[in-house]
Amino acid sequence: MLIRDIVEALGAKLDGDGDIVVDRLVHPARAERPSDLALAISPQAAAALARTKARAVVVAAAAPWPARSFSAVLAVAEPRMALARLTALFDAGPPHERGIDPTAIVAADVALGPDVSIGAYATVGPRSRIGAATTIMPQVTIGADVTIGAHGLFHSGVRIGHNCRIGDRVIIHGNAVIGADGFSFAPDLMSAAAFTAAVAVRRVHSLGNVAIGDDVEIGACTTIDRATLESTRIGRGTKIDDHVHIGHNVTIGESCILCGMVGISGSVVMGDRVRLGGGVGVADHVRIGEQAVVAAGSGVGSDVAPGAFVSGYPALPHARSVEQHLYLGRQKRLHDKVAAMASRLDELERIVSRTVKK
Amino acid sequence: MLIRDIVEALGAKLDGDGDIVVDRLVHPARAERPSDLALAISPQAAAALARTKARAVVVAAAAPWPARSFSAVLAVAEPRMALARLTALFDAGPPHERGIDPTAIVAADVALGPDVSIGAYATVGPRSRIGAATTIMPQVTIGADVTIGAHGLFHSGVRIGHNCRIGDRVIIHGNAVIGADGFSFAPDLMSAAAFTAAVAVRRVHSLGNVAIGDDVEIGACTTIDRATLESTRIGRGTKIDDHVHIGHNVTIGESCILCGMVGISGSVVMGDRVRLGGGVGVADHVRIGEQAVVAAGSGVGSDVAPGAFVSGYPALPHARSVEQHLYLGRQKRLHDKVAAMASRLDELERIVSRTVKK
Amino acid sequence: MLIRDIVEALGAKLDGDGDIVVDRLVHPARAERPSDLALAISPQAAAALARTKARAVVVAAAAPWPARSFSAVLAVAEPRMALARLTALFDAGPPHERGIDPTAIVAADVALGPDVSIGAYATVGPRSRIGAATTIMPQVTIGADVTIGAHGLFHSGVRIGHNCRIGDRVIIHGNAVIGADGFSFAPDLMSAAAFTAAVAVRRVHSLGNVAIGDDVEIGACTTIDRATLESTRIGRGTKIDDHVHIGHNVTIGESCILCGMVGISGSVVMGDRVRLGGGVGVADHVRIGEQAVVAAGSGVGSDVAPGAFVSGYPALPHARSVEQHLYLGRQKRLHDKVAAMASRLDELERIVSRTVKK
Repeated sequence: MLIRDIVEALGAKLDGDGDIVVDRLVHPARAERPSDLALAISPQAAAALARTKARAVVVAAAAPWPARSFSAVLAVAEPRMALARLTALFDAGPPHERGIDPTAIVAADVALGPDVSIGAYATVGPRSRIGAATTIMPQVTIGADVTIGAHGLFHSGVRIGHNCRIGDRVIIHGNAVIGADGFSFAPDLMSAAAFTAAVAVRRVHSLGNVAIGDDVEIGACTTIDRATLESTRIGRGTKIDDHVHIGHNVTIGESCILCGMVGISGSVVMGDRVRLGGGVGVADHVRIGEQAVVAAGSGVGSDVAPGAFVSGYPALPHARSVEQHLYLGRQKRLHDKVAAMASRLDELERIVSRTVKK
Repeated sequence: MLIRDIVEALGAKLDGDGDIVVDRLVHPARAERPSDLALAISPQAAAALARTKARAVVVAAAAPWPARSFSAVLAVAEPRMALARLTALFDAGPPHERGIDPTAIVAADVALGPDVSIGAYATVGPRSRIGAATTIMPQVTIGADVTIGAHGLFHSGVRIGHNCRIGDRVIIHGNAVIGADGFSFAPDLMSAAAFTAAVAVRRVHSLGNVAIGDDVEIGACTTIDRATLESTRIGRGTKIDDHVHIGHNVTIGESCILCGMVGISGSVVMGDRVRLGGGVGVADHVRIGEQAVVAAGSGVGSDVAPGAFVSGYPALPHARSVEQHLYLGRQKRLHDKVAAMASRLDELERIVSRTVKK
Repeated sequence: MLIRDIVEALGAKLDGDGDIVVDRLVHPARAERPSDLALAISPQAAAALARTKARAVVVAAAAPWPARSFSAVLAVAEPRMALARLTALFDAGPPHERGIDPTAIVAADVALGPDVSIGAYATVGPRSRIGAATTIMPQVTIGADVTIGAHGLFHSGVRIGHNCRIGDRVIIHGNAVIGADGFSFAPDLMSAAAFTAAVAVRRVHSLGNVAIGDDVEIGACTTIDRATLESTRIGRGTKIDDHVHIGHNVTIGESCILCGMVGISGSVVMGDRVRLGGGVGVADHVRIGEQAVVAAGSGVGSDVAPGAFVSGYPALPHARSVEQHLYLGRQKRLHDKVAAMASRLDELERIVSRTVKK
């Protein structure tokens, strides 16, 4: 890759030679080849520039960097955005064979777009469709009647249940499970008051599917259960980390961020651009308004207004959570103060009763 | 399916034509074919009946529905139980090939009941047994010396370790792992006071297995570890959601309900019909009595009595948790009140000391 | 196995016949064969010796056991260490075929050490290396350019992404995913103040890998994400339970213990011998010093000093957490006390104002 092309892609300011060829993006301390491009947009990495072997370096325009001579210095205005663009430029994706592996079992009536790759031992069920240039890595299973869009990447061990619908440019990481049955019984056991041996439990079967929009990313070992009748929906552009669980009948808006180990119970409805920190749990049927933020580790038991920032267990407006924690830390002091006041009261009562009697 | 047969299965009251044939259960708003049966047992779905294209509809007997002419109205007394029965009637399960796929690797001495299906690339180890009409979906691995009952359904990516025993009518969802080794070391590191570089850590190996009763359901990406010497036991009829972890040597009773992301540490003992909300954690060696309920997000650090309802971290009787949260919300008010009382005390002391001196 | 050899391996004291042959380690109540060795190092198991059919038994030297005649009594000084040694002696591991299964797809340029076993339908990508005597169970996928050491055991469904480096004697349980992409975006959404529709989100790609030291054990369905540029590192001897999530750019020291369902956000740095209880969450960029302990269920939001013991959400020094919980339980009492003091103040004020007026 030519430095000049990178400069253009980043909108960077170049000081030096645009004709240098680079083929690897590294921390300044790891640079060892003439073709290494050292990324030094963090203060710690910029400090490492003093002793780097790299000839070409990327720095944050707003931060200082060692006064040394480099063949090319690319200064970027928005370091994190540059990180996204640069890593995209250098990401070749997981190496894989092109085309349909002879051991892949693809039903005869599957519709495959151009340039689809399907890896070893993957299976694709009848009547399914896979869009152009989508890559299915080895040992993925795709059920019957599944629709998958174009330019997707499905890592090994992904399970897509029958009837599910998946948009374009969707990335699903290893061992994620899309379309397992919902966890639903009659009677509704978690709300039933008494659960004696006399209560017969019946399974509510899941006849619906999962519908995933374009540009969604789903982490490793994440599970999204199918709906009872209709669709569990993940909106366009939503990003989901590893070990997330999304229950049946849930609707998640567009461009939401669900960090690792988030658990969403059945029938939750979330607006667009909702952000949930790691380990957040959401109770069933809760509604979370658009652009709301839930701090990591919180348990959401009731509706959250659009734009709200909540935290804690149960989750409260963040300012109230902070206030509660502040006072939690002062409990001993308060007890001591009240005890001292009680002694003063005793003493006052003694004096007053003596005085009044006189 | 004939409406009259559905009426009988549900114990519903029919108003209209029992000879209509239906083949799909849908939300009233989604009905589009003459053979669609619209399910309108929730108030929201009942409201959608006003504009449905469905000819045949299921309603809750106790709730109002639009005065419109339908070919068949099925009124049910217990809506949620009807939902369970109806979805069971219409659930054909995941489409799959019948019989043993030629790519499945089944050891020569495996005993298969009649009508067993084993999907593509599944493997079944030596001396294992699979009961009648059980379906093994593609890419399941079953180890050596495993016993599986009849009428089971094992979804793709399920891993069953050697020696495990699984009952009849067990459903296991995608990528669940039954029979991984327990997490156990010598010394017992989580209780060891000091863990310096001088402490040598040795693995306690898992020689036991996992034993799962009849009618158990296990969610996607759930893990149940094998016992050290004996069996990690899951009682008959217990339902386990996605991402649940059950440690080694655990015994879980019958008909328990474990919601998503529950974590059960080693050697826990749970009675029958225990209900654990989502994300509950249980410390090792804890005993939870039958019919106890633990609210979502709670951390159980000590024994729970039969029938108790506990919540919080650490879990307390729910009434006490609620009381604590109530007072937590009043901390600022209490501090302000105490501060005001302190001022009044100051003032009183001033007056009294002046008065007494006089 | 000869009793005399076991005695030597355990450093046990033998009372009886060292020439007895045993082939199975069981709970005293399960002994049924002459070749069963009954393990009775817990008080409960020792009590069961009274009615065991075992001829040979292992007991804790320091604890009482029934006065009965056995052919061989092995008394051990350190029961838990003896449990580790004994279970290791009797653990034959999961039964599997030796050698490379004909259905395994191993790229032509893969370097395999002697005695490597690769199970059915496993795949190994180009330029990868697998060390001597490592066992790859069926349906494992190993990407391109992966290095795996000697004497490892990789259970079915394990996914190893391209470029990852794994040491000797590493055990990875079923369906664990090593080397999925990190969860990282520009802008940094969890810290961005506002996330409106005008904010364009870009993916930060993961160009790095995961590097795992010798003697590491990784639980079922655990995920370890690859670094952005360098390596997500797991130090030698660290033990990781099921359903653990380790984010990108994390460095974990040697001999750490991570219990089930722990979640480690991106760029966390942990020293050696850190112990994290079940369900602990750690926020991104946090540093946890060596030999620190975090109690189960805690949420760590800021740095933890070496050797510290913290608990709670947010995690505090354990003594402070305990103090807070103590006072939490006394809130009602405090409110009642303050209310009573307020009444006394009212009364005093009444009396004093009357007295002063006079």
